[in-house]
Amino acid sequence: MTRQHTVFFVSDRTGLTAETLGNTLLTQFDGMEFEKITVPFVNTPERARQAVLRINAIAEQDPKRPLVFSTTVNDDIRGILRESHGLFLDLFDHYIPAIEKELSRSSTHTVGRVHGMADTERYRSRIEAIHFSMAHDDGLTPQSYARSDVILVAPSRCGKTPTCLYMALQHGLFAANYPLTDEDLEQARLPDVLLPFQARLYGLTSSEQRLHRVRSERRPGSRYASLEQCAYELRQAEALYRRYNIPFLNSADKSVEEIAVVVMQDKNLRRQTF
Amino acid sequence: MTRQHTVFFVSDRTGLTAETLGNTLLTQFDGMEFEKITVPFVNTPERARQAVLRINAIAEQDPKRPLVFSTTVNDDIRGILRESHGLFLDLFDHYIPAIEKELSRSSTHTVGRVHGMADTERYRSRIEAIHFSMAHDDGLTPQSYARSDVILVAPSRCGKTPTCLYMALQHGLFAANYPLTDEDLEQARLPDVLLPFQARLYGLTSSEQRLHRVRSERRPGSRYASLEQCAYELRQAEALYRRYNIPFLNSADKSVEEIAVVVMQDKNLRRQTF
Repeated sequence: MTRQHTVFFVSDRTGLTAETLGNTLLTQFDGMEFEKITVPFVNTPERARQAVLRINAIAEQDPKRPLVFSTTVNDDIRGILRESHGLFLDLFDHYIPAIEKELSRSSTHTVGRVHGMADTERYRSRIEAIHFSMAHDDGLTPQSYARSDVILVAPSRCGKTPTCLYMALQHGLFAANYPLTDEDLEQARLPDVLLPFQARLYGLTSSEQRLHRVRSERRPGSRYASLEQCAYELRQAEALYRRYNIPFLNSADKSVEEIAVVVMQDKNLRRQTF
Repeated sequence: MTRQHTVFFVSDRTGLTAETLGNTLLTQFDGMEFEKITVPFVNTPERARQAVLRINAIAEQDPKRPLVFSTTVNDDIRGILRESHGLFLDLFDHYIPAIEKELSRSSTHTVGRVHGMADTERYRSRIEAIHFSMAHDDGLTPQSYARSDVILVAPSRCGKTPTCLYMALQHGLFAANYPLTDEDLEQARLPDVLLPFQARLYGLTSSEQRLHRVRSERRPGSRYASLEQCAYELRQAEALYRRYNIPFLNSADKSVEEIAVVVMQDKNLRRQTF
């Protein structure tokens, strides 16, 4: 029996950066399976020693050394973790010296604040953005559109809602959306309420097959989910986008992150990674 | 006039990993300000050369060399980027050789899939989780609770909604929430609908001051936002949590990510970083 390789993500805070970093690297090893264990909040020597015990327990059972992706700022804690029997790959160990040299500055060794910042203005505005996107999902007032940074327009189930939430949550953007109605689609016309905000609109389309599949999961066998209806709505939506010069993209093979990045780039919206 | 140091995040995909990497490292240089430019989708030699021109344009104006955080998998593209006049810091350059050696495997050089995966089962379930959390925000049926992985319980504005959305979006969890009503709080009793799901409950509290401030932004001068009302609700909520042995945490100085990580750890919920 081949055991999976064990991977630890160790961090003095949430572990999210260690996971992102490690997972990105591990996608380069196709076909291998990894048993992943996150150990967050390793912010005392005692917790570091406990983490080492967990890593060593795996290392003893298994000829394959565990991989340990670490993002711990404190030198003492990192020193303890480095003594584990895993392969220790630390973000700060490697890059900080080069950056210190370049900036002619010492690093502050502050415990990671990338996923923290609960009290700053920026964090507050992000939470507001989330509430905004929630409140204005499929719900439309001229006031809400006036406040928006961007308004996604599309037929049902092309990805508007998750993309708006993602842009709010990860980038602090006030992202509203407008689901095209039967009437809009039939006439390939924008409703009057959107006309003052044309510059903020971005359209989504999809492929017939994908939209059919996604809608079928929701309402199997319905007209709404039929291939014909999906094809019709996509065709009309695209005609509408072209008529009003609304930039648009086909979301069929794109993740929420990819859609958002394209929209933000095209609309020149600020990116903030929280 | 001191110019800010310019930082580039260059990637063959969304640039999100490069941003995470770079921003985490830059938080270690307190008090310095950085002008940040993300250049996503650098997936052809031509685009790589364009990115180099942008980096060099800054490098020529400015005695401070730009920092370039890169996550590009392709060797040729990375080779072009490396020739820029910035300080080139690439994720793959550094870590991949060590991991290849450890795993006795060559890496596949596949363009980053950490923020992609639009068609896998996992991605579908994530989108479902987002729709679930949207649909069941403050809306409650026994069916929705039965399907949930976790149910956050709290007075208004302690962070339930953003945390649920975050857990859905970033970890694919079916996260429901229940806002405690005046009646629940008065009697420090759970409503009957939640009793079958006690094992999935997690409580949030906050500090009086923070809750007062957050609620005042929403309804200034209201009874709802008054310090007395906030103190009362938090006291009663905590009594309720203790009565039913519901684990809880004070969200006052925590970000959405931090709250989610603690909840997932306490409830032993799987973490998936998308």
